[in-house]
Amino acid sequence: MENIIKIVITGSAGKIGSSIAFRIAAGELYGSEQKIDLHLLETSKGMEALKGIVIELEDSAFPLLNKIVATDVNDIAFTDADIALLIGSTPRTKGMERGDLLEENAAIFREQGKSINKCAKKSVKVVVVGNPANTNAFITYNNAKGINPKQFTALMRLDHNRAVSQLALKTNSRIEDINGVIVWGNYSSTQYPDLRFATIKDQLAYSVLDNNWVKHTYIKKVANRGAEILETRPYSAVHGAVSATLDHMRDWIFGSNGRWRTMAVISNGEYGVPAGLIFGMPVVCHNGDYQIVDNIIIDSFSKNKIEESIQELQSESFRVSNYL
Amino acid sequence: MENIIKIVITGSAGKIGSSIAFRIAAGELYGSEQKIDLHLLETSKGMEALKGIVIELEDSAFPLLNKIVATDVNDIAFTDADIALLIGSTPRTKGMERGDLLEENAAIFREQGKSINKCAKKSVKVVVVGNPANTNAFITYNNAKGINPKQFTALMRLDHNRAVSQLALKTNSRIEDINGVIVWGNYSSTQYPDLRFATIKDQLAYSVLDNNWVKHTYIKKVANRGAEILETRPYSAVHGAVSATLDHMRDWIFGSNGRWRTMAVISNGEYGVPAGLIFGMPVVCHNGDYQIVDNIIIDSFSKNKIEESIQELQSESFRVSNYL
Repeated sequence: MENIIKIVITGSAGKIGSSIAFRIAAGELYGSEQKIDLHLLETSKGMEALKGIVIELEDSAFPLLNKIVATDVNDIAFTDADIALLIGSTPRTKGMERGDLLEENAAIFREQGKSINKCAKKSVKVVVVGNPANTNAFITYNNAKGINPKQFTALMRLDHNRAVSQLALKTNSRIEDINGVIVWGNYSSTQYPDLRFATIKDQLAYSVLDNNWVKHTYIKKVANRGAEILETRPYSAVHGAVSATLDHMRDWIFGSNGRWRTMAVISNGEYGVPAGLIFGMPVVCHNGDYQIVDNIIIDSFSKNKIEESIQELQSESFRVSNYL
Repeated sequence: MENIIKIVITGSAGKIGSSIAFRIAAGELYGSEQKIDLHLLETSKGMEALKGIVIELEDSAFPLLNKIVATDVNDIAFTDADIALLIGSTPRTKGMERGDLLEENAAIFREQGKSINKCAKKSVKVVVVGNPANTNAFITYNNAKGINPKQFTALMRLDHNRAVSQLALKTNSRIEDINGVIVWGNYSSTQYPDLRFATIKDQLAYSVLDNNWVKHTYIKKVANRGAEILETRPYSAVHGAVSATLDHMRDWIFGSNGRWRTMAVISNGEYGVPAGLIFGMPVVCHNGDYQIVDNIIIDSFSKNKIEESIQELQSESFRVSNYL
């Protein structure tokens, strides 16, 4: 029998979820030969809008798209999943405290974790995109004890791509000539884009950068790109998040050719990050697996920045401890 | 100097225009080696939203994306264009007559035609997606007399993909096993999906189809897919139109491997279609060019259906004759 890859997309009628469905069906994740099934999960309320997405997927006549499953039932969506893109989450609405947001999402990701544990392939690769992504991923793997927690990640690639892009713009260099960029921490404003080991054509980027620019302009610029988008329209990143999610999964599945990428992954205590937290760290991907880059020197500035993210994530995980 | 392909997208802050920008930057049109410049055209009113799209394109760190030009000036957008995707058009608003819609768009496409004539490469390939697409393309080439009118096309690939997909669903066959589907005419409800020469694995599809189903169910189903989408949400095809536009251009540029595709192209009098009209016809693409498939037998049912589209397009072109 033909090997067909089953890909779950949650929040699949949303802006990010629907866009990524088409790009995957067009071959952007697995290339132009691999047939795929799309398992599209939505809330009951989202099922009507999902109908429109299914019509459009059919109307696109994608040769790679073997089957579409559209459902509001976790266990149907996650059955035999190879890949799970957890994009849907409850957005923060007016008057909602951050704590409420954490709890509402905790309930969603607890159920999805249980369902992944019960129904998905044991080799499933999971990335959480829905915010608060790191903590949602933390809840998900804690409710899926039958699966290696290394397989649960959160998206930091959008921040990583922003960090690379801003360096390229500043130095007038090409994206493919840049390596060694890191974004430590949480997918939030505490994140720390770290250029200390960044290279441009194998030369240290710092040799052409002003340390003041990095500390006082660059770090803020990277963290504030979402806010810049919000100045132009009432919703934040869509296509940038889609591209980053594809980049994250493509590298994880097919390898990063020795390049450093940022993924939020479970800590085993690396760099002072408490074991168990889902934390943005530099990784190299190879053969369907990733390794956290080791032996990076942490100076005192970096230590303080990383500590901020640790505290934020510890506080978030404390707040959702009832959902583990 | 490196050969960089310049691609114009009009309506580039809109749903279709912005989505296609990202898919092209990711390599879906020219593959993963060819560098591109994106020339993003918007109305003055759309420039603020376009800022958000530019931020997201930068944030995606696409290695293939050499340069972004964001402008509301036709002559800047079309300078040295290799490819022009004319997606933006004035939508029909409440109370607007079809005639008003035709004239408002005629004014837009007249100016774009002039600008293409003046600024684009003489080898430019143009596809009009913005409705009424066939007539907009008719106006465009008539205002660009220095360029071969064969290079001005309109999108019928969404209808073509729908026609293929509905046949695949009905017969439980695979997209890649289907060939010989045609959608004659106008991108409107008069269009005529014609299965008489369609094959599934090189066998005539009609050998497993009921003629009544084709005439009374299938033809309407294909033409009504846009309306089906509108039942689920307040706007019509987005991603399906994006995919179809990419399919149209990819086949035109790189060839269709002997397969029939539907493109709306200038008639030279083929099949009784008056010369000069932009009409959906079966083509085969090879080596950056297309040929209208010849020697197709037109039976009386087909003749009547094709005649409907001819009359509609003639009436549209009469209405915009002041813009030529």
